[in-house]
Order: sequence, then structure tokens, then C-alpha cells
Amino acid sequence: MKLYDRDHSGNCHKVRLLLSMLGLEYESVPVDLGSGENRSPEFLSLSLRGQVPTLTDGDVTVWDSQAILVYLARRYGGEEWLPIEPVAMSEVMQWMAMSENELLFGLARARQNKMTNGPWPWDLVSEYGRSGLAVMNEHLAERNWLALDRPTIAEPACYPYVALAHEGEISLDDYPAVRAWLARIEALPGYVGMPGIGD
Amino acid sequence: MKLYDRDHSGNCHKVRLLLSMLGLEYESVPVDLGSGENRSPEFLSLSLRGQVPTLTDGDVTVWDSQAILVYLARRYGGEEWLPIEPVAMSEVMQWMAMSENELLFGLARARQNKMTNGPWPWDLVSEYGRSGLAVMNEHLAERNWLALDRPTIAEPACYPYVALAHEGEISLDDYPAVRAWLARIEALPGYVGMPGIGD
Repeated sequence: MKLYDRDHSGNCHKVRLLLSMLGLEYESVPVDLGSGENRSPEFLSLSLRGQVPTLTDGDVTVWDSQAILVYLARRYGGEEWLPIEPVAMSEVMQWMAMSENELLFGLARARQNKMTNGPWPWDLVSEYGRSGLAVMNEHLAERNWLALDRPTIAEPACYPYVALAHEGEISLDDYPAVRAWLARIEALPGYVGMPGIGD
Repeated sequence: MKLYDRDHSGNCHKVRLLLSMLGLEYESVPVDLGSGENRSPEFLSLSLRGQVPTLTDGDVTVWDSQAILVYLARRYGGEEWLPIEPVAMSEVMQWMAMSENELLFGLARARQNKMTNGPWPWDLVSEYGRSGLAVMNEHLAERNWLALDRPTIAEPACYPYVALAHEGEISLDDYPAVRAWLARIEALPGYVGMPGIGD
């Protein structure tokens, strides 16, 4: 397997986490967004959007972090990380949606604003991100994991941009249950870090 | 089944489309966001985020449009609308991700900006939305449906905010393959419209 990758990308880290937790070997192929490598015809033939992460596994190519997590869980994880029973699967998908909404367009965009002068207004996205943290904190006050009684792909999907919130100048002080959940993930077999987490 | 619903919500319409295409009966329960009904303790006990759509089906409650589509497809659609084979499922999920990213934080936020003076900057979100339309247009130039050789939940997930793009002052003139795809969806058995589409 090859993961088209970028060290500082939380979206890439979602995939790195699951690959490691599943014990899968892969080659990380760095893609230089600064030089426009992601807009080359070669890369666009793999990834229509010209984005990392993109995964190749033999003849299979998957773009988008969420789709890659689903692919890996279904192909290599049995039903442990993504069950196919309708209620359980939709529980996981609720938190996948949180990862794509409040966390990506809240916390991650706030980080992009502060780290690389990104264009999304910090006041707007940081407030949106905090609304997600508040929901997660209330939910996690009574349980260990987001969707089920064990870790699922909701955990690697939601972990990176919460753990990196401080880089967007969003404090987790008000969200103790979220901090405890981060620590539980960091104690899982196969957990790996990334730049900005635990530095 | 009860769908907590709002007429003008494209996210709610994703669910209405699939319910209708699956031939499922349901009761639409309007939720008045203006009066804050969605922040009532009663509603928040169903939907942690205080958002529509939220679905109840007997004892089961599912919030988030994406999670509801997955739930309905898995529970009532066999594998037709969401296959469980890893590659096919990830193909569907790639376009579910498009619906949550470029379409929701592009096209839908542009619409919110123009229709209700929403806070997301139009220049930014309209450009992001058009990047999604360009990818869809290229992809759909060579195929009828987004993910597989038949409609999947990617279709109801992506349809509403594309069909409503004009309300965000984003023209589909440059995306003929996308317009042809909209027409194919509108010809499917069980298709239903909503305010702003085909007015």
C-alpha cells in the first residue's frame, strides 16, 4: 500500500492512525502541495480533487480520508472498526460526520488560519469548532468511545484535529471529557503521534 | 418513522429523497429553528447537535443527514444503495465526503449567505463549491452516476445543494455533465422536489 501523504496534515494522520492500529505496512509518499505537485496530471489521475490523503492498494485507489478509513476498516478490520449492522454503522457515521463538519470546518480551519494564514475567518470557524467540542464533551462524559463500546473509525477520524486544536488557538480546558478521550486513544495499541501533538 | 424536518433544508431533502425512492412511509415533523425549538431539551435529547434532519424509527434515533442515509440504505435498501464490499463502499463514501465538503461548505454556505445573510464569506465558499462542481463535471462526463453503475446514496447526498446552487448565485452553465446528472436523478422513480428546485 502507498499513502500519498503530508506530515502536518491531520486528514492524513487519520489514515496513518488506522493503518498503524490495524498493523498494516505501507509506504508513505510525501506530496508537496507548495510546489503544486498535487495538481500534476499524474497525481490528479489518482485523486480527482488533487488532495492528500490518497491511498493505493494494488489496483485499488481511494481518495478522501473518510472513504479511506471506510475502505481499510471494511477490507482489513472485519467488523471491529466499522460494523455493518444498520444502527451500529449509523452510530459510527454520526461521528464521521462530526469529523467532516465541526472538526474539519471548525477546528482544522482555525488551525489553518493561525498556522498558514488560511482564508477562513477565525472567529467563525473557532466558534463552530467549539460547538463540536461541546457536543463531544457532553457525549463523552458518560462513555469511553464516540460510537460504540469500543474504538471504531470514528476515533481516528475525530482525533487529529481535536488533538491539534491548540495550534488553532482553541483551548481544550473547558472539555475535560474530550481530553480524557484523547488520552484513551493515545493509550491504544498502535497509536502514533504527529507534529504538533504532544510536542 | 418520524423525520424532524425543515422544508427549505437541503440536508433534510437528502433524507426525503431516499425515503421516497425506497418507498418508505414517514411523518414529517417540522422543527422551527427560528424560535429555537431545535435547542429545546426535548429536541436535544434526540439530536445532540440540535440539528435537522433527525430520524426516529421505533427505538432508533439517528442524527445527521449522512448517518441517516447510511442507516436507511443498510436497513431498508439491501446492498443496492450502499454495498458493503470494501471497494464499492469506499467509492460511495468518496462522494459522501464531497457532499459534506465542497457541496455543504461551498454551495450550501453560499446559498445561506445569499438567502439568509449567513456568515460564511461568499467569495470563499462559492469558489470552494465550484471546485467541487468541476470535479463532479469531469467525473460525470464519462458516467451516469457518481459512485457505481447505478444510483447509490451518493446521489441523494449530493443532489440537493447542487440543484439549489442558483440560490447561492452559482451558475451551473459551465457544468453540463452535472446538469445531465441532475436530470437523470429527477427521472428516477420516487424522485421528489423541494422549494427552490424547479420553481
